[in-house]
Amino acid sequence: MQQTDPVALTADLIRCPSVTPVEGGALVLLERLLSAGGFTCTRVDRGNTANLYARWGARGANRSFGFNGHTDVVPVGDLGAWTRDPFGAEVDGDWMYGRGATDMKSGVAAFAAAAIDFVRETPPDGAVILAITGDEEGDATDGTVALLDWMAANGERMTHCLVGEPTCPDTMGQMMKIGRRGSMTAWFTAQGVQGHSAYPDRARNPMRALTTLLSRLPDRIDAGTDHFDASTLQITTIDCGNPANNVIPAKGSATVNIRFNDSHSGAGLSDWLLSEAAKVQAETGVTIATRIQISGESFVTPPGDLSALISRAVQAETGVTPEMSTTGGTSDARFVKNHCPVVEFGLVGRTMHQVDERVSITQIRQLKSIYSRILRDYFA
Amino acid sequence: MQQTDPVALTADLIRCPSVTPVEGGALVLLERLLSAGGFTCTRVDRGNTANLYARWGARGANRSFGFNGHTDVVPVGDLGAWTRDPFGAEVDGDWMYGRGATDMKSGVAAFAAAAIDFVRETPPDGAVILAITGDEEGDATDGTVALLDWMAANGERMTHCLVGEPTCPDTMGQMMKIGRRGSMTAWFTAQGVQGHSAYPDRARNPMRALTTLLSRLPDRIDAGTDHFDASTLQITTIDCGNPANNVIPAKGSATVNIRFNDSHSGAGLSDWLLSEAAKVQAETGVTIATRIQISGESFVTPPGDLSALISRAVQAETGVTPEMSTTGGTSDARFVKNHCPVVEFGLVGRTMHQVDERVSITQIRQLKSIYSRILRDYFA
Repeated sequence: MQQTDPVALTADLIRCPSVTPVEGGALVLLERLLSAGGFTCTRVDRGNTANLYARWGARGANRSFGFNGHTDVVPVGDLGAWTRDPFGAEVDGDWMYGRGATDMKSGVAAFAAAAIDFVRETPPDGAVILAITGDEEGDATDGTVALLDWMAANGERMTHCLVGEPTCPDTMGQMMKIGRRGSMTAWFTAQGVQGHSAYPDRARNPMRALTTLLSRLPDRIDAGTDHFDASTLQITTIDCGNPANNVIPAKGSATVNIRFNDSHSGAGLSDWLLSEAAKVQAETGVTIATRIQISGESFVTPPGDLSALISRAVQAETGVTPEMSTTGGTSDARFVKNHCPVVEFGLVGRTMHQVDERVSITQIRQLKSIYSRILRDYFA
Repeated sequence: MQQTDPVALTADLIRCPSVTPVEGGALVLLERLLSAGGFTCTRVDRGNTANLYARWGARGANRSFGFNGHTDVVPVGDLGAWTRDPFGAEVDGDWMYGRGATDMKSGVAAFAAAAIDFVRETPPDGAVILAITGDEEGDATDGTVALLDWMAANGERMTHCLVGEPTCPDTMGQMMKIGRRGSMTAWFTAQGVQGHSAYPDRARNPMRALTTLLSRLPDRIDAGTDHFDASTLQITTIDCGNPANNVIPAKGSATVNIRFNDSHSGAGLSDWLLSEAAKVQAETGVTIATRIQISGESFVTPPGDLSALISRAVQAETGVTPEMSTTGGTSDARFVKNHCPVVEFGLVGRTMHQVDERVSITQIRQLKSIYSRILRDYFA
């Protein structure tokens, strides 16, 4: 029987306009393909979101390798700036163009093709699972979380999981992600007392209170840990909107975003921020209200069997030994890590979320080869 | 002959809708009145601005006392919030309402009435001059400056000058102004490099550069001098407008306003600001462009004959010894001080620039009495 072509499958998926939260035909297409390949498929939709769960092998098998990914894509953005149809899957040399070309319809195509061919050619003693969501680029509340909730409620499990997000900064095989830093955002709103610039004693300047507070929140919070870079804090905006330079404004706001490693928790950092804001409030008389959102705690799957398995496969197929990194933003791995050991590996993501997003066709084939080898080695 | 009534004259002036730069009939009215009182009147208009110069006595007299003031007023603002016609001069008990009631049609009425009655009753050996502008509340480029330019070109001079702006914070007679702090504004624009909050090493955060800079610019620049309070710096706004907390913005801006005493110059403070901005630029790689506007240098007429004369008159008429202050914003005294010693004294200005601006009728009469006594004592 013919091998499943991950390049044609990527093109088919790109042609589905699945901008979050629209399903766009992408999961329907995968469900048909996987069902034909012997997978038991279940649509696990929640809220606006469509999700697909596919299993080959027995439910709750002792050894079950899972792939996680998403078919939803971010919006096209400035359509006029695109030189190709963002849903056309046009090919030019080694490049295939389209929204989701790298993030991550190619990744989903590669692991779906690898899984279908693997179970057909060498049926494993165990299960192969694909947990594919349509809500990774949105709030991610009804996507992978919904799949994991449903799995727990239905006796479904993965013993190890690989998330197929693009992880390589520049060259294929360069990097896997064994964890992610945590992410949180704090919004400070400072309410002072308006006044005339010539009479500062009669006013309380909220902008001075904010700069004092921000000057006590360093860009680097620590020196890094065994598996993580330093925790970092960035001021993402400060706003006031006072056009009059003879007026001390009444109110201003500032936002900081923190990416933190495993030496911190969201709760601990929240306490720190609230305590620093309270000190400045006590010193200045400016009221500082703080709203905090913790998007995710840090997590790590320490180097072990899973990362070694992936590393060997990547090296065999590309000649490159992938770095085990915890850099970057968040991904659905933050949910999967509560379920089983999880590592992320995918292709080069340089054009993700950009105009003229495109993927190397060579890399799609390499990625399928790597995923196939991982499956073979895992069940060997 | 009957005394000139400063209350009726204030009401007549309030009824002239002379919002800067509109003359509104106010200077025409004064010119007619002063001409009838024996003053030589000249309209010294420049650009959009109408100004009135009135002299009783010989041109270039060795002893000539001048009054300076303005008939233009700030806009009404929220008309719906006024409980009286802002150009109606309505009276309720001791209050007369209207835009310009305190700032400073009452002041102009008081010194015009005092001057007319004084030269008629006790013609002095010298000159009495009224330099009245219609551009104090605007840019002030074609107002008192135009009058002083014209005077210099035409052999006109004042040996001493009193500016009739409201100077008393709470009670009549409480304060005169013997000088003013300088005022300047600096606009900082920081251009960094945009990036993802998770990868701060690839970006340069303009908001951090600005907070670093601002944290090095203290609210109090010195401890004050003999005649001045401390020089102060206020952050009047910081702006960025970045809504995405996972994005480090490319650009931000901040504005500071400085009120400085005679231990500084605008040039010296500009050098300081530019040097601090350059240091932060060198440290952060964020480009900081700085635009500076010096609205006025500090000046002082040290306590002497003029302030003593005013102090005695105020005390005789009100029982209060006025404080010699240099607080507050700017006034046209900053131009007059290049011409002759200048002091400011007027009534309580608490409602100036506000809705329902109003003046105490009793204070208008007191103010005329004080100005009359100053003229008598000056030429005695």
